[in-house]
Amino acid sequence: MAVATTQSLEGLCINSIRFLAIEAVEKAKSGHPGLPMGAAPMAFVLWDQFMRFNPKNPKWFNRDRFVLSAGHGCMLQYALMYLTGYDSVTIDDIKQFRQWESKTPGHPENFETEGVEVTTGPLGQGIANAVGLAMAEAHLAAKFNKPDLALVDHYTYAIVGDGCNMEGISGEACSLAGHLGLGKLIAFYDDNHISIDGSTDIAFTEDVAKRFEAYGWHVQHVQEGNSDLAGIAKAIEAAKAVTDKPSFIKVTTTIGYGSPNKANTAGVHGAALGADEIKLTREYLGWDHAPFEVPDDALAHMRKAIERGSRYEAEWDERWAQYKTKYSEEAVEFDRLLSGRLPEGWEKVLPTYKPEDKAVASRKHSEICLNALAPILPELFGGSADLTHSNLTELKGFGNFQKGQYQNRNVRFGVREHGMGAICNGIALHGSGLIPYGATFLIFTDYMRAAIRLSALSRVGAIWVMTHDSIALGEDGPTHQPVETIASLRAIPQLTVIRPADGTETSGAYKVAVLNANQHRPTLLALSRQNLPNLAGSSIEGVTKGAYPVVDCEGIPGLILIGTGSEVGLCVKAAEQLTSEGKKVRVVSMPSWELFEAQDAAYQESVLPKAVTKRLAVEAGVSMGWCKYVGDAGDVISVDRFGASAPGGICMEKFGFTVDNVVAKAKAVLG
Amino acid sequence: MAVATTQSLEGLCINSIRFLAIEAVEKAKSGHPGLPMGAAPMAFVLWDQFMRFNPKNPKWFNRDRFVLSAGHGCMLQYALMYLTGYDSVTIDDIKQFRQWESKTPGHPENFETEGVEVTTGPLGQGIANAVGLAMAEAHLAAKFNKPDLALVDHYTYAIVGDGCNMEGISGEACSLAGHLGLGKLIAFYDDNHISIDGSTDIAFTEDVAKRFEAYGWHVQHVQEGNSDLAGIAKAIEAAKAVTDKPSFIKVTTTIGYGSPNKANTAGVHGAALGADEIKLTREYLGWDHAPFEVPDDALAHMRKAIERGSRYEAEWDERWAQYKTKYSEEAVEFDRLLSGRLPEGWEKVLPTYKPEDKAVASRKHSEICLNALAPILPELFGGSADLTHSNLTELKGFGNFQKGQYQNRNVRFGVREHGMGAICNGIALHGSGLIPYGATFLIFTDYMRAAIRLSALSRVGAIWVMTHDSIALGEDGPTHQPVETIASLRAIPQLTVIRPADGTETSGAYKVAVLNANQHRPTLLALSRQNLPNLAGSSIEGVTKGAYPVVDCEGIPGLILIGTGSEVGLCVKAAEQLTSEGKKVRVVSMPSWELFEAQDAAYQESVLPKAVTKRLAVEAGVSMGWCKYVGDAGDVISVDRFGASAPGGICMEKFGFTVDNVVAKAKAVLG
Repeated sequence: MAVATTQSLEGLCINSIRFLAIEAVEKAKSGHPGLPMGAAPMAFVLWDQFMRFNPKNPKWFNRDRFVLSAGHGCMLQYALMYLTGYDSVTIDDIKQFRQWESKTPGHPENFETEGVEVTTGPLGQGIANAVGLAMAEAHLAAKFNKPDLALVDHYTYAIVGDGCNMEGISGEACSLAGHLGLGKLIAFYDDNHISIDGSTDIAFTEDVAKRFEAYGWHVQHVQEGNSDLAGIAKAIEAAKAVTDKPSFIKVTTTIGYGSPNKANTAGVHGAALGADEIKLTREYLGWDHAPFEVPDDALAHMRKAIERGSRYEAEWDERWAQYKTKYSEEAVEFDRLLSGRLPEGWEKVLPTYKPEDKAVASRKHSEICLNALAPILPELFGGSADLTHSNLTELKGFGNFQKGQYQNRNVRFGVREHGMGAICNGIALHGSGLIPYGATFLIFTDYMRAAIRLSALSRVGAIWVMTHDSIALGEDGPTHQPVETIASLRAIPQLTVIRPADGTETSGAYKVAVLNANQHRPTLLALSRQNLPNLAGSSIEGVTKGAYPVVDCEGIPGLILIGTGSEVGLCVKAAEQLTSEGKKVRVVSMPSWELFEAQDAAYQESVLPKAVTKRLAVEAGVSMGWCKYVGDAGDVISVDRFGASAPGGICMEKFGFTVDNVVAKAKAVLG
Repeated sequence: MAVATTQSLEGLCINSIRFLAIEAVEKAKSGHPGLPMGAAPMAFVLWDQFMRFNPKNPKWFNRDRFVLSAGHGCMLQYALMYLTGYDSVTIDDIKQFRQWESKTPGHPENFETEGVEVTTGPLGQGIANAVGLAMAEAHLAAKFNKPDLALVDHYTYAIVGDGCNMEGISGEACSLAGHLGLGKLIAFYDDNHISIDGSTDIAFTEDVAKRFEAYGWHVQHVQEGNSDLAGIAKAIEAAKAVTDKPSFIKVTTTIGYGSPNKANTAGVHGAALGADEIKLTREYLGWDHAPFEVPDDALAHMRKAIERGSRYEAEWDERWAQYKTKYSEEAVEFDRLLSGRLPEGWEKVLPTYKPEDKAVASRKHSEICLNALAPILPELFGGSADLTHSNLTELKGFGNFQKGQYQNRNVRFGVREHGMGAICNGIALHGSGLIPYGATFLIFTDYMRAAIRLSALSRVGAIWVMTHDSIALGEDGPTHQPVETIASLRAIPQLTVIRPADGTETSGAYKVAVLNANQHRPTLLALSRQNLPNLAGSSIEGVTKGAYPVVDCEGIPGLILIGTGSEVGLCVKAAEQLTSEGKKVRVVSMPSWELFEAQDAAYQESVLPKAVTKRLAVEAGVSMGWCKYVGDAGDVISVDRFGASAPGGICMEKFGFTVDNVVAKAKAVLG
């Protein structure tokens, strides 16, 4: 098989992909869909000759993973899925491309369309997810494979475009992938010299191949990507043969290949061809099938993937059967992981504390929790973006995940927050029960917000461990002190944000986080730099409900103080003073808005009775959103400006986080 | 001058820098300050032999710009500023390092310490700012310089560390810098093989120099950065001689150089040395001056910068005098720019509209405003991150800013949102009156949030032009549809967010944005993809007040509908219906919370009278924060979940943004 002519079997398959996409995009008529005219040959060769997957079982464990990082080109993936026989993408789904409730949304969404591994669209995310998928494979292979039985053994393939390559996140992830020597990661660079604005000559003239060599990747170049199928195949074989480096295959193509007037222009990047141009493209490529129809022999050829896939899977089942017999202990653990069954009683290792126990920072309690869980939950696998000893996220004794040491569990991400975020998403979406966690300073969630958002959207069971959570961090100053960060994260749908008040609440936070991860939901923990006293009334149970009284009074309170994290202790002290003056005060700790909102109305009413309108919230962050819980008659002690560089205690005092000020504001509320 | 021995004059100067830092960090005792032991030699050579600046006039226009991208090492910069004679950093300021209200905060802050060009700390921002500073220089030079008079002629120097080089943002900015051939940008890479977590062997083993070659930079390597002052000087000379590429000088150093036990360890990266180690370092480096004392001859030598600086400035003043005589028209414009005087009546070009005028999208109105302003405000200089024809941000006829075409005004940033953000910050902080603007889809503010935050913190007069602002954008789906984005941006202090309802309001938004920029404040515009009808009651004046009635009734309203952007028109229609049913309805357009909060209490009361408690807000975004304006008795029509992939009109309808639903919810509020 050398070059694709329009009438060879390969050519018919490739054009089937092209024209399904053309017609689907034409019918949808909106947004920025990409047409896979140039990318179709490489994708065809990959799916037809190399990728091991079972269209009838998209969740088969040992399948090769495929990521279309250039997500706007999703019709490429949908077309391939339909042609190879996935049940999740029928011809009707293709016709419903980008319509309300369709299975073929405008960018690939793993939570909508079975068979799609990760959600892409925002550029650069997909290739970083792919790095995570490859890391998961390497880790599980090192953990479970035996010299005579390779249970975990698959490749991760990604297609990236110029856009992904311009994005900083892809550089971060690919630099790490090179450092880690991820030999089973193979990325195709659809080198078509066009982005939305036009030719890459306009803004992107770097030597991409050289940059990937600098990252330590194995680099190849297929010059005639539109037609040299044999060359593409050879490159993939060579890439697979290099086992100690990830591989980068630059494939030079023509965007809009086959369209006489629009090929190689920006115009074809983000718009439908239009009826006239489609006609010309049909003529050029010799295609006369009706819209959404493909030649029988092309379809039959593509559908051979079903039989192949079934065979691959059966072969692996046989391997798994042998493994279960020969390595039964490991097999039990492997099975537990894959079925997402947390070990019985796992949460019992999470400690609780009494007031007399030493006050340490919640980031320290987080370290204690992580290390208590680490031996019980081998699925915990993650690290920090170069702040390991500040975030306190090392799983002690479990080593660094490095080239040749993939069985280890501490990932050293380097100063690459956004890459870390998307890599963790990929690790979770490997679907093997691994629970990734990523850590940095809370303020630097700003660097990785897009990945955090995607973790919420695409049902990623990750834990975001964020420390140094307020002005109390002190001298690093306003560039590092979060004020609006927690509010901005609470705003993200489907993300649970927890800000624990002490050691017991930190344990509660981890209980929720692990359960969430197990249910494919992300959790973000906001942890203090400074020591926090252990409170008498705190509980793990209370955290799971999002808000609960830690101090109460007889009967109906006259005043409710609501605190989160480091401010709960302040509220407790203020309540003591107010109580000694005869006030009836309840102190509510509110570690998580989202968890509270998930409780039924009766519980919510029991914690924050509507009739009690005198409320004061205290949180070292912006007031935005607190009106929901304090109401028109309430008030907030907050930080509605940037912080300042000074010791943390001074900052807290200058910004009004003192017992005296809480008491004063409470009295003002009481009137 | 060859190698620095501890007793040579150079050695005394370098050790003065080192020990000022050591003692200041020791005294402050907290956070993650960096010690400039290894970086001091290169910084000394740069400031002593090459940098042209006047310590007594930090705002002298033609000064070389210096950026410490590795901002945690700020004691390096403060020490240099003190030693060379800046009034803004006295020895007492050095002693107050990282204390409340000190002029030497924990990371360099341009708004705190005169002479500091940009605010760094968050890694990667500084080098990207430096790219912006160099772009500003190139642009102004191309605009104003004459063959016989180079009015604008300075270098931009930056020091970056491993952390900055790992961050994706730096790759984005440096790739663009290479493409643009910014020959007067010179970056030093403090190559000390250490980051916070330890040796770079742990996570960062790429070939950085090769990567910068791939970006198209001129690359050099000084092997003995601790002592080879002549080598450093030679490299700077060579870098200056290369005029068509930015230069990268990798300087291999030892972190913590001079500290016998802590040199070359991560321990010295983020902590004070401690009294014992300081003693040993003093012995090692032969230093016996009291803390905060430097040898007279070292100080005298460094203070020669004052005389040099005064001479450079006088020389330039002479050039400027000649320029004013010979090129008086250009001189008038140059002077206008630098003094920040907007042209008389500039805002008159902003159009207003009547309801009968064609309804177009606010992103289209934005394009009209930008192009109306472009000839009147030559300071407008910016572009889009590869979405020029979607964001509609091209200044037509003003060409692309490219290598050799620096006089042009349209910047093609490529798919590099975060780099764009920090570059724009640098352009604004060049301090020459340029008003940069950066554009992408509103959702992708997530990619550049850290830079937007810094624009607010560090008083950057930039305009963030963000289009495709809600679920109404349609088919690109939930990965692209903002729901929580506007709320998350409103949460940032000192950032004005404006979401205009129609053409007239978009003009109002630009009036505010330009005035803000002129006063060194950033503005973010949220603009629609879809067409918006022009409203009868909208006004530019109203926008400047943040909220105002666009429809009113006789006397006190029974109900107030509050809308923003695309939802105001919906409120107006709903009000018509409710009014026809006898209700007394006011419709308030609320394009900007921040602008409204800046009005006095009387105005706020006039728009949203406390007595009128029946209120309904309508915005296609999350409800977070709206309780502040609708109160306990009010309600919100919002989107508190992720969006969906479907045509925009369908999305709006399915999510409840219909006249019928507004009417129904309004009636429910009325009870």
